[in-house]
Amino acid sequence: MSELAFIEWLRRRTPADPRVLVGPGDDTAVVRLVKDRPCLVTTDMLLDGSCFELAQAGPRRVGRKAMAVNLSDIAAMAGQPVVAVVSVGLPRHHGLDLAQQLDAGLREMADAFNVAIAGGDTNSWNGPLVISVTLLGEPTGRGPVLRRGARPGDWLVTTGSFGGSILGKHLDFTPRVREAVLLHGLTELHAMIDVSDGLAADVHHLCAESQCGAVLWAERIPISPAALQMKGDRSALEHALGDGEDFELVFATTQAEAQRLTVTQPVPGVVLTAIGECVESGLWITEYGIRRALPPLGYVHELQ
Amino acid sequence: MSELAFIEWLRRRTPADPRVLVGPGDDTAVVRLVKDRPCLVTTDMLLDGSCFELAQAGPRRVGRKAMAVNLSDIAAMAGQPVVAVVSVGLPRHHGLDLAQQLDAGLREMADAFNVAIAGGDTNSWNGPLVISVTLLGEPTGRGPVLRRGARPGDWLVTTGSFGGSILGKHLDFTPRVREAVLLHGLTELHAMIDVSDGLAADVHHLCAESQCGAVLWAERIPISPAALQMKGDRSALEHALGDGEDFELVFATTQAEAQRLTVTQPVPGVVLTAIGECVESGLWITEYGIRRALPPLGYVHELQ
Repeated sequence: MSELAFIEWLRRRTPADPRVLVGPGDDTAVVRLVKDRPCLVTTDMLLDGSCFELAQAGPRRVGRKAMAVNLSDIAAMAGQPVVAVVSVGLPRHHGLDLAQQLDAGLREMADAFNVAIAGGDTNSWNGPLVISVTLLGEPTGRGPVLRRGARPGDWLVTTGSFGGSILGKHLDFTPRVREAVLLHGLTELHAMIDVSDGLAADVHHLCAESQCGAVLWAERIPISPAALQMKGDRSALEHALGDGEDFELVFATTQAEAQRLTVTQPVPGVVLTAIGECVESGLWITEYGIRRALPPLGYVHELQ
Repeated sequence: MSELAFIEWLRRRTPADPRVLVGPGDDTAVVRLVKDRPCLVTTDMLLDGSCFELAQAGPRRVGRKAMAVNLSDIAAMAGQPVVAVVSVGLPRHHGLDLAQQLDAGLREMADAFNVAIAGGDTNSWNGPLVISVTLLGEPTGRGPVLRRGARPGDWLVTTGSFGGSILGKHLDFTPRVREAVLLHGLTELHAMIDVSDGLAADVHHLCAESQCGAVLWAERIPISPAALQMKGDRSALEHALGDGEDFELVFATTQAEAQRLTVTQPVPGVVLTAIGECVESGLWITEYGIRRALPPLGYVHELQ
């Protein structure tokens, strides 16, 4: 099947969506966003051998993850995802089978969050699988929640638990889109981020943008069952702080609101935990009452 | 320099743009598009060894091309490009130098067409260079010009000339954004496409979407100087019909309008040429008064 035939096939099976005025098959997709609101745009590229291992994960889960990481970025802003475009570089061998399974994973995740796939670009090459998704969304409530806006005295609250995502969650996580929108309606979120690089690293990013510091409370960090199962030299807490790809949310709000939220637990199926407090500067962790500096553990791509 | 440091560096040198409310450094870019109009979205991925040869082209021209192919897609709709996001997979070796030169090429082209780069995703891996750009734009005039809308009796008109783009134009072309917007204001464009796969192939795409056919006039096809310099078994005309990556426009309009445009030549610096006529069905070429079937020569990615 040629690429053109593949795009034709994709188009025929793309159901009509009132938000997609012109979809796959033309030069450019034409989409309708909500009037009078700014547009959220996020993009993430996943590369075989770096962001996933195709042979282990299988193409369907890779497609799912490629959409889900973008959904998580929109969630970090408490946005509502709307329309995606997808570009892929397919290995020539078994490219068609791969494309169909990728597509199934992408659509499964898109459908779950009411996202229309409006178009894309399909290439085949002699390299490994590459997939890049760009997702457009709309702000909700009082507008996008940014990384900046946390203030000394705010408490930091998380959804879910952390660590050991390599055992499965990094592929099978549920992006916290609904949770973010719900929280944005319930309280004033001063700042928010999704945890992709690692809890310590992403708290560091949030603080850097907010020009403040934070103290994390070691005994309160919600450690995932997977982190407890990890073998090796690092403690479960170190996994929770450094592993990354949890795709949970961390947000800053007033102490009073953080206490109210953790007592009332208003988000169905997801536990909210207060894990620390914003301070003037530095990144710290207290354990057994002793405060020590916390390096921003987590994933950093090094360029040479 | 770590990736985070690189993103920080990118952000610092991104000038303030009133259309980018939140830019590189947050989870998602927040952009402002024109109110009450649909949004154009296009994406293209370029892969080293398939869409370009990095060693020959150099990273700056690759960056330029990655932005320019998307601009050409927006031009095909007679749209106005507004905001781009860029994701890259950088080889680990010399990744930083590569990133800086790519960035220079991307910005050169973005600046030339008043496009704001609002964000992106930077990865390093053990594979070849991959770059994917997603470009958002706005319709102009009476709205987006589609591939569908050509009618039997319409004439087909091109900008510029065709063939031999591999000798340089495939990297150094100027996307026909201004020309498309100007033409859209001057006449009623029934259908339009940019020539990326090849003149014959892209006329075929336009006809397929418009549910009509076309006859091309061999003697009228504007053959580029580069096509005349190509060595090998194929004639210059065959290069013009089949080479692809000319990134010129082909549009359908009434015979009267086509004649008026080719006589008045209203587009500064770019020659408009009537190259054929839409018919009920089939793709044909007449040469020395003889009509023969024209296969949709051009670039097709084969999936196995």
